[in-house]
Amino acid sequence: MADMDWPGCAKSLKGVILDMCGVLYDSGEGDGVAIQGSVEAVKKLQTSDLQLRFCTNETQANREKFVAKLGRLGFDISVPEVFSPAPAAVAVLKERGLRPHLLVYDGLLPEFDTVDKTNPNCVVIGDAADKFSYENLNEAFRVLLGLEKPVLLSLGQGRYYKETDGLKLDVGVYMKALEYACDLKAEVIGKPSPMFFQSVLDDMGLQPHEVLMIGDDLVSDVGGAQNCGMKGVQVRTGKYRPSDEGHATVTADGTVDNLAQAVDLILNQRN
Amino acid sequence: MADMDWPGCAKSLKGVILDMCGVLYDSGEGDGVAIQGSVEAVKKLQTSDLQLRFCTNETQANREKFVAKLGRLGFDISVPEVFSPAPAAVAVLKERGLRPHLLVYDGLLPEFDTVDKTNPNCVVIGDAADKFSYENLNEAFRVLLGLEKPVLLSLGQGRYYKETDGLKLDVGVYMKALEYACDLKAEVIGKPSPMFFQSVLDDMGLQPHEVLMIGDDLVSDVGGAQNCGMKGVQVRTGKYRPSDEGHATVTADGTVDNLAQAVDLILNQRN
Repeated sequence: MADMDWPGCAKSLKGVILDMCGVLYDSGEGDGVAIQGSVEAVKKLQTSDLQLRFCTNETQANREKFVAKLGRLGFDISVPEVFSPAPAAVAVLKERGLRPHLLVYDGLLPEFDTVDKTNPNCVVIGDAADKFSYENLNEAFRVLLGLEKPVLLSLGQGRYYKETDGLKLDVGVYMKALEYACDLKAEVIGKPSPMFFQSVLDDMGLQPHEVLMIGDDLVSDVGGAQNCGMKGVQVRTGKYRPSDEGHATVTADGTVDNLAQAVDLILNQRN
Repeated sequence: MADMDWPGCAKSLKGVILDMCGVLYDSGEGDGVAIQGSVEAVKKLQTSDLQLRFCTNETQANREKFVAKLGRLGFDISVPEVFSPAPAAVAVLKERGLRPHLLVYDGLLPEFDTVDKTNPNCVVIGDAADKFSYENLNEAFRVLLGLEKPVLLSLGQGRYYKETDGLKLDVGVYMKALEYACDLKAEVIGKPSPMFFQSVLDDMGLQPHEVLMIGDDLVSDVGGAQNCGMKGVQVRTGKYRPSDEGHATVTADGTVDNLAQAVDLILNQRN
């Protein structure tokens, strides 16, 4: 049974999924800063026999720009390895014939280039940061209230995230605001949606028990992965708070100081 | 039993409480506009034998400026007749030794002149309209997250209100946003808080069954008054929507086209 527990479970792993912000780097002014040891840890995983994917609720830039930023921080990652909510939302919009009113960061708009946005019949909300003005939130509200069957898609449901100059409100806060204003329930795209994690597993061609998720968000990363049958390990970087280790509903399979320590524990088990 | 129902109940009334925005006037650019017949209806109540009070969740201006605005619209109302959340909040702050960080409309600030605002140990949120920027909401969030026992007082919990140029998000939406961000429950000051309605009854020296509330907000005005044992009548002006008349949990004692009709029905019963 010890093999089933962390880090013993690493012996039978076939893949690892990494959260990005708070695990690889801390965001902030400019490109933010790489978390110590993370660049080297990602290289070690890339040269191992494990499959590797990146799963982020990042919605401030399209994947091309996001991957380029990570490149400048020293990470060698390619766009197809990165799973983020916007492309998942685009798939949902097209499948259901939805034309979005977008309340998202300007940098994310290119992800929606191929989507019909005329005469909107739904609202897509992402982390819009400074664009979350009273005027813009009112506009999204009025679109929803004018629809016979209002649909609100939310790119994540995070409460807040950490930038180098402090904590910032995340998209979930504005999702809740619009839910209350319009008396509706949003559909969350991105972590911790099981559909979102499953799309990563599908891409890897692996079963949940063969994959480990490493993240800094106990509920969204660790709890979300566990709900899909994966193991979930939390790092003590990014938005980690000590109170996470006594959380009422989510218990990580393991808690490590940072990604570097997690990767060393995993690879040591396998040698 | 017919005397217990609307409008028969008017025979035994001793007082009337009027909501203001959406009943007396529609807000909007400048002073907004008086709702047809309301100026005359208020005069009729003022010259009747009924006590009259005004109960508003208005938090965009202090009462002096608010009453002056209504004067320009033709209403002859004095400050002590008006009950609004800010003075009620000031009483709570002083009683509990709370020092607020204020996220409110600039025009409301004078109501808090006598309150110590240094080294805040709570947040007071009102309808701040354009001041509900990402930056200002982040600031309130950080104050709350930095407190050992975070306290959030909300001046009302409305979803939205109507201005002449359309519907606008109200304070309740941002209250829900901060509740989610900080994982806490706000304390609502103003309608539909029973404590707030009770303070108006106390001022009139009347029992709930002797008083009728007239408002345009089914849940906050009508439902709130009914929860305190008063009768509640809804007007089909302001934020009234036809779907209110089939609401799942709140049924008005009566529904009338506007304040003028309500007052005529009341006074006709009493003659």
